[in-house]
This record gives sequence, C-alpha cells and structure tokens, in this order.
Amino acid sequence: MAASDDATIERLSLSKGGMTLVDADGAARLYEAMGPAKEISGGSAANTLAGLAALGSRCAFIGQVADDQFGRVFAHDIRAGGIDFETPVRGESEPPTAQCLIFVTPDAQRTMNTFLGASQYLPAAALDEDQIAAARVLYLEGYLWDPEEPRAAMRRAIDAARGAGREVAFTLSEVFVIDRHGDDFRTLVDEGLIDVLFANHTELAALTREDDFEAGIAALRNKVPTLVVTKGADGAVAVKGGERAEVPAEPTKVVDTTGAGDLFAAGFLHGHVNGEPLETCLRRGAICAAEIISHYGARPEANLEALMAEKLG
Amino acid sequence: MAASDDATIERLSLSKGGMTLVDADGAARLYEAMGPAKEISGGSAANTLAGLAALGSRCAFIGQVADDQFGRVFAHDIRAGGIDFETPVRGESEPPTAQCLIFVTPDAQRTMNTFLGASQYLPAAALDEDQIAAARVLYLEGYLWDPEEPRAAMRRAIDAARGAGREVAFTLSEVFVIDRHGDDFRTLVDEGLIDVLFANHTELAALTREDDFEAGIAALRNKVPTLVVTKGADGAVAVKGGERAEVPAEPTKVVDTTGAGDLFAAGFLHGHVNGEPLETCLRRGAICAAEIISHYGARPEANLEALMAEKLG
Repeated sequence: MAASDDATIERLSLSKGGMTLVDADGAARLYEAMGPAKEISGGSAANTLAGLAALGSRCAFIGQVADDQFGRVFAHDIRAGGIDFETPVRGESEPPTAQCLIFVTPDAQRTMNTFLGASQYLPAAALDEDQIAAARVLYLEGYLWDPEEPRAAMRRAIDAARGAGREVAFTLSEVFVIDRHGDDFRTLVDEGLIDVLFANHTELAALTREDDFEAGIAALRNKVPTLVVTKGADGAVAVKGGERAEVPAEPTKVVDTTGAGDLFAAGFLHGHVNGEPLETCLRRGAICAAEIISHYGARPEANLEALMAEKLG
Repeated sequence: MAASDDATIERLSLSKGGMTLVDADGAARLYEAMGPAKEISGGSAANTLAGLAALGSRCAFIGQVADDQFGRVFAHDIRAGGIDFETPVRGESEPPTAQCLIFVTPDAQRTMNTFLGASQYLPAAALDEDQIAAARVLYLEGYLWDPEEPRAAMRRAIDAARGAGREVAFTLSEVFVIDRHGDDFRTLVDEGLIDVLFANHTELAALTREDDFEAGIAALRNKVPTLVVTKGADGAVAVKGGERAEVPAEPTKVVDTTGAGDLFAAGFLHGHVNGEPLETCLRRGAICAAEIISHYGARPEANLEALMAEKLG
C-alpha cells in the first residue's frame, strides 16, 4: 500500500474506494505507477482473524498461498499472531501469492486493486473438516466466492460446519461480488445457512434490492439470526431475533480506512462467541474498526485487549 | 520489522540497539521468533537516498538485489521515489535479496539483524563509472565495507569519483565495522579520500581511539574537510575547516529509531550540495532524523520538502 492522491486515482482510472480485481499484467502496471510502498499482510478474512486472535479468541485460518516470499510473509504474520494455519502451500510457482495494491488518498479512502493469484486455487480438498467441525464459528468472506475453487471449498466448509451444528458467519465483502453472486447469497440466506451476516449499507441494499436501509434490514431480519450492518462514519446496527442495537462510530483520527469492516467483524465476533450483549458486540466492533483506520494497513498495531479494557472498562 | 519487548531481545540473545550480521539460518530462526511484521524497504545508503530524493536532490543508487519478490519491492520503492537504479539484478536465485530483521522495543530502540544475501555480491563490474563521475557526491556506507565484493566496488567507485574531481561522503555505519576495518577507514581518511565523514559519537571514538568526544573531533578535523558527528538525543556537531556548528535534536515523539543516522545524513547532504551554511545543513539533518524516528521504518512518510519549509521557513 502507498500514499496517493486523487489525480493519480483518476489518471489510472481506478475505482475510488472500491475493490477491483486485476490480472497479473494489471497488477504490474499499477505497481509501476504506485509510489514507495509498504508491504503489509492482508486479506479480508485473515485481517478479521488477526483481530480476533489479538482479542484472545482461538482461531485457525484456511487460505491458499504460493511458495514465494510474500507467501512466507503471510504465513509468518498469521502464525506469529497465534493463529493456526495448516493449508498446504501451493506447489506450483505460478501464480504467486495474492497481492492487493492499495492507493490511500489524503481523505483516508483506500482504493484496492487485487490480484488474487494463488488464493483463487484453494482446493476444497485442502480443508481440514475436523478443524471446521471443532470451531464455534466458521467465518467466510464474500470476495473469495468469486473464483470457482474457493467457492466450492466454502460450500464444503459450510456443510462441515452445519453438519457439526456450528454457526456460519459470512461477510458480503463488496457490491461487485453481490452483483455477480447475489443469487447464491440470497439462496444461502433463504436456506438458513448463514447465522451471522456482515454487510455495509450499500451491500445490504445490493443484496436485498431495497434502497431504503430499514427496508433492507426488514428483508433479512427474519432470515438471518444475527444481522450486522455497518454504516461507515455513521456507526453500525445489529439485529438479533427481536433485539436491535446501534452504536456510533468510535472517534479517531482516520488515516487509512483499509480493513475497517474486517476489524469491525473481529470485534463483533469476539463478543458474539463469548455470549455478550448485542450492544457490547457492536461496541467491540467499533473500537477495533477505529484502531485499524487510525494507521496504515489492516492488521492491528495497538494491543486490542488493552484497548478493550480501557474503552469498555 | 516488528514490535517486540526486552524479554524477547534477551531470550534471543540479541545485541540490543546494534546491528548484527546473521546467516540464512540465523535469519530464519529470528523470523520464526518475531511477531507479526511489516516489510518496508531499507538499506542504510538507500534510506539516505530516499530522503535526499524526497528533498529534491537528484540521486542514483548502486546496489545488488536478487531476482525475487523482495528485490522487486526494493527496486520499485527506490525508483518510485524518483531515484535512478540501474544495477543489474543478480541472476543467481541464491542468496535472496538482503533482509534486516528489526525488533523495535517500547523504548523505540531498534535491534537489527541483517542477512546480507545478494547485497554482498555487488561486483565492481556493475558500476557505471560515468554515472559516478557525473555525481556531485559519491555516498558510501560502511556496512558494505565488510563483504569483499562491495568493498572492492566501493574502492573503484572512490577512484572514479576522485578521478572526476567529485566529493566522497562516507558513513561509518556501526562500531563492529570499525572494529574489523578501522585500519582501512583510517587509511582512507589519512589519504584524504573522504570529503564528508558521518559518524555517531561511539563510531567517532572507535575510529579515532579517543574516548573523549572533543579529542575525537580534534583527531579528524584536519584530515576530513567536513566532519559530521551525531549524538542521538543530544543533537549533532559538524566541523568544516575552521568552522564548527552544533544543533540540538529536533523534538518529536520517538517510535522507532531505525534510520535516524541515515536520514540525518540525507538532510545534511541536501544542504551541503546546495552550499548552505553548516548550521542549516545540521538543522536539515535533525529535522529529517526526527521525521524518521516518529514512525516505523526508515523511509520517510511525511513530505520532507514541506516539512523543511515549515521548520526552516
């Protein structure tokens, strides 16, 4: 990721604030145009797990890296955070480990351009179904619903989790994924396979085809046991059965919004698995999101447990 | 680089605050023991050039990377900073591009463990002597005097610069280098081949074998046209012919001292090549050093030109 400016975003015809998939050539072209950068491990679900582990939850990550330096960095960072990571490295040297080229503008918006690389070849056979069955919650990211192999792996993971009576949490990730796979997601919801659904307000609208926020909530609240919708600077709402809670955003100096949703999910899920009140779960989400947007990168820098103790008492 | 603590430094028997060379196995062992990290381009002289370029000086970098992801990241970051970098990538796949494993303790000290990798194979033949002859100043780092090939390359570079009537600037880098190569450095100084010498106060003592600071200055001031000695939190001193100047450290919140000397040299040299008064050169050094120690990593994050305008008016 690198600091950038609006002129560069425009010159490169990037989709400001969004996530765009790019191929190897596109990634090379954008990297060429990018300023001096920092390499920081990322990945939406991996960021969430980094937050959960930092809060004290036991986690295992499933995902595909290649046998290259970025793959080793990713594996190091996830394991050094105390997270199990046993997915075999992909033997083939091409494509390399996924990269996300993130341009951060002075307004703290992040414009992401993702080369999925090895991550799109996660085979269902790489899953450890016993591990999934042993986890309280299976957490899935919508981004990887797009490529075929991880989608098949996620379907199998859902079966493994449901078969063991576990919860499935799902983040919709991005509107473009809903544009392409909304029918799949609506079917998962209708079949009652999603226990905890994370969305931001535009993803909620895309999934429910309801422009009105409350209409969107109403369309899902009876189908999803726990629905969590973030609204950026306007805070977040959660609905769980008959209960509804809402929190404002946690005040902070915003430097880079990358990972805000990922870390919100981390905070919320940590409270959720510990059976905390809905509002406390939201507060934890807001505190984690505020930490991550106060610096570059989507992996926590502050001691999240200490931060929680300070903010929640 | 990663946040760490004193207990880890002790457990791993690291040399706190210093720079220690490690081999590939040592690097792997330390990386294993390191927390979640950030990968940021570095290298002492490269950091200095990044600062110089950010201040508006035209720079070219000479150094050896391997054909791997870290090598491509290094080359990207240096070129994206506006610096020429034409040294051919080393064809052999082993050893990989140099890595420095930096443990940053809560007192902001950096403990560096460097695997020199490809950098120790910079061949003298890779130099573009016309480029060196065209530069106002040739800047060399002591760290790379230790391995044989870059040492030979630096000797040839000195000849090219001196042959063209250019200045040679040299940073002593670290006491261990002086312990091993002090005689070489003293000979370079005695032969009048060093025009600008950068040292911190412990390096000054090691080179001159004078424990007393003023005695150390006195031992060099007639041999080195411009002598710059940094004293950490106590500021810096420069002596140029009959003139002497001194500045305090620039106040800042210190997060990570990595690169303080490198960026001090950048600020000083930028003033030096522009013929500024000695005290202004020192002030620029102190301002650049303060910027770099206020955040993780040894590449500038702030707009250094704007910072100079603000601080120097």
